[in-house]
Amino acid sequence: MKTLISAVRALDIRFPTSRMLDGSDAMNPDPDYSAAYCILETSGGGLEGHGFTFTLGRGTELCVAAIESLAPKLVGRSLDGIANDLGGFWRSMVGDSQLRWLGPEKGIIHMAAAALVNAVWDLLAKEAGLPLWRYLAAMQPEQIVAAIDFRHISDALPPVLALELLRARDPDKAGRIAQLERDGHAAYTTSAGWLGYSDDKIRELARAAVADGWDAIKMKVGGSLADDKRRSSVLREILGPGRKLMIDGNQVWEIDQAIEWVRALDFADPYWIEEPVSPDDILGHARVRSGVSPVRVATGEHCHNRIMFKQFLQADAIDVVQLDACRLGGVNEVLAVLLLAAAFDKPVCPHAGGVGLCEYVQHVSFFDAACVARSAEGRMTEHAGHLHEHFVDPIRISRGRYLAPQKPGFSSEMKVQSRADFAFPNGPVWRS
Amino acid sequence: MKTLISAVRALDIRFPTSRMLDGSDAMNPDPDYSAAYCILETSGGGLEGHGFTFTLGRGTELCVAAIESLAPKLVGRSLDGIANDLGGFWRSMVGDSQLRWLGPEKGIIHMAAAALVNAVWDLLAKEAGLPLWRYLAAMQPEQIVAAIDFRHISDALPPVLALELLRARDPDKAGRIAQLERDGHAAYTTSAGWLGYSDDKIRELARAAVADGWDAIKMKVGGSLADDKRRSSVLREILGPGRKLMIDGNQVWEIDQAIEWVRALDFADPYWIEEPVSPDDILGHARVRSGVSPVRVATGEHCHNRIMFKQFLQADAIDVVQLDACRLGGVNEVLAVLLLAAAFDKPVCPHAGGVGLCEYVQHVSFFDAACVARSAEGRMTEHAGHLHEHFVDPIRISRGRYLAPQKPGFSSEMKVQSRADFAFPNGPVWRS
Repeated sequence: MKTLISAVRALDIRFPTSRMLDGSDAMNPDPDYSAAYCILETSGGGLEGHGFTFTLGRGTELCVAAIESLAPKLVGRSLDGIANDLGGFWRSMVGDSQLRWLGPEKGIIHMAAAALVNAVWDLLAKEAGLPLWRYLAAMQPEQIVAAIDFRHISDALPPVLALELLRARDPDKAGRIAQLERDGHAAYTTSAGWLGYSDDKIRELARAAVADGWDAIKMKVGGSLADDKRRSSVLREILGPGRKLMIDGNQVWEIDQAIEWVRALDFADPYWIEEPVSPDDILGHARVRSGVSPVRVATGEHCHNRIMFKQFLQADAIDVVQLDACRLGGVNEVLAVLLLAAAFDKPVCPHAGGVGLCEYVQHVSFFDAACVARSAEGRMTEHAGHLHEHFVDPIRISRGRYLAPQKPGFSSEMKVQSRADFAFPNGPVWRS
Repeated sequence: MKTLISAVRALDIRFPTSRMLDGSDAMNPDPDYSAAYCILETSGGGLEGHGFTFTLGRGTELCVAAIESLAPKLVGRSLDGIANDLGGFWRSMVGDSQLRWLGPEKGIIHMAAAALVNAVWDLLAKEAGLPLWRYLAAMQPEQIVAAIDFRHISDALPPVLALELLRARDPDKAGRIAQLERDGHAAYTTSAGWLGYSDDKIRELARAAVADGWDAIKMKVGGSLADDKRRSSVLREILGPGRKLMIDGNQVWEIDQAIEWVRALDFADPYWIEEPVSPDDILGHARVRSGVSPVRVATGEHCHNRIMFKQFLQADAIDVVQLDACRLGGVNEVLAVLLLAAAFDKPVCPHAGGVGLCEYVQHVSFFDAACVARSAEGRMTEHAGHLHEHFVDPIRISRGRYLAPQKPGFSSEMKVQSRADFAFPNGPVWRS
């Protein structure tokens, strides 16, 4: 029987993380990790598609409202019909002639589209009985290309080049999948280095991380240079010379200031500087990159669409592509950015942390490794230790690597109890 | 007695313009010109501040919701307190540590901030008894600079350069104001060239426009090249060789396609090509500009913040800065972009049309001409003939020029009856 999307429910779910300073950085002192969450109900069979976009607390209600405004575009559609025209489906979600004025393809309306688009992919993968990354890996190169909107990126990535890149990797795909299933995927952890943590807490967490097998740790910087020097010394000492230390400025600097600050931390041998300046400042990143070389420049968690990533790559402004699976317009646009990165031969190290982002992006990284990326060199998936207990199919980490997700879907489904407990503003956690 | 902002009301107001194809272009076939509108109520004296952000129909409810989410930042503040710290006031509206994740400084959350910021400026000017442009012109260069957030643009426009630019224009300001009061400000009209209009309607409207004294007309292109050739011939014939014809692609092309298309219309001597490619594609605009020279490249109505405009200017990607007064975060960010344009010596021709945009941007153009721009060369304010009858202080046009607004405020106040008639979804126009 044909599966039809029969209803969409949108939920506002917030975790009071600001109470512990988890997730604190120079720009975001007090985030409450949250999700504008949606559930696609289907007729016949009872499958549900789950998706969300990640938010920081206040304003989640606006993404929820935007999901509700976009939902009528999905209700009544058949899953088969979507699967047979993935590109058309995506354009129908982001190309509404009146709604696109509110972006276009950026901000709340794009994030809401991402939640719904990802919920559809969750549904597709569940119906096929495959984890999303395996569902994507099972698609033919032509099908992947057909899912991508090349509008405004065809100068850098014409469809024929995308197809060529995928085909070049297709013959030995099975071997890489087997290897990924066996060895997992490289990762780094952000959980030790939040700005709001004390030196003692950072030291303790970093020691524990190294003992657990992590060989790359990220630290938040940009509050005070004296603090950053002291804390990066602490971390470098614990990491030793062989492990990587990444630093993350979270957009607080002007361009020259970023260059000076990063140079002042040179002694700690940072592997990359993340978000040194405004996430919209492509030319600014290029200047920072020239100024801090050989320290790499990374950005992307605020990069709102494929057109911006295209330019970051064309301008040679970044070394590391940190796409976000629900700031971009969901899986379809993620595929576009994976292929753009491959075309420019830059590693994708997806943004994660928050709530549910690790669950999402593990699928992105595993698919990238299996079918797109030319090599594993420099590719690591971000990890943070928060809030995984709320998911039905949480990430699994072993010795500093992600293990391959096994259950059907996008790992995006939150437990019923968690959805109830943390519902905003009326769940028990927020009422008390 | 101190004026306090005591309450904020947000309204969803939509005009069914799609029924007439007014405003139709290659990307937007059927806009319903709308406003997410806000009213700031004050204690003592009964002054009201009015502001809005322009939208195209569906999704206006999301901007209204965002205004409501931001409103608590204003309620209880004194107008004096705001006037004494205009920069701090603006940062408080756009810099909320949780809400900024939803942009940052782009899309729905930024447009909602613009509505509120502009309503505050309306209130400030009304309290001073001056039209907004005269209120701004009466401020000292230091006060203007203090209202601007230089974060992420200081590499191109350090505060000291902004001050220098304003001071250089300060001594002969009074003379220019007198001239503007007498002669008005140059303009062009978009009302003749909507894509959905027939050739006959375009011909008739263009003849009427020329008879009314207009010497610059804009036409929508990008649907079919054959149509565009025919229609631009019609318009060029009516305009003769001495008047300007602008063309507007509304983002529908890829880069090479834009260059070819514009070259194919060379025979009609277009003055500028507007929005040839994605509004996010700074490097793409630079390529188009090289390819279509001497035709100028114009963009800005979708340019979401000062950081994007900075790069369009740094990359030498545009000739004409078409800022939008409520896509940018309101007057404070408009001031930043006026000064950026002055620093790069490019003309600002603000985006207007829609509903209320002409009322807004006349103040921007008059202030720019009085206090910022180095010359009047190439500066024209967009005009479209729709919906002015709904405003308390509508624009006044004479012989193809804007006359200087005279009444206190930002001309942003919509008539009570119009607000009631076009309220969505329960006003009489939408119920029927």
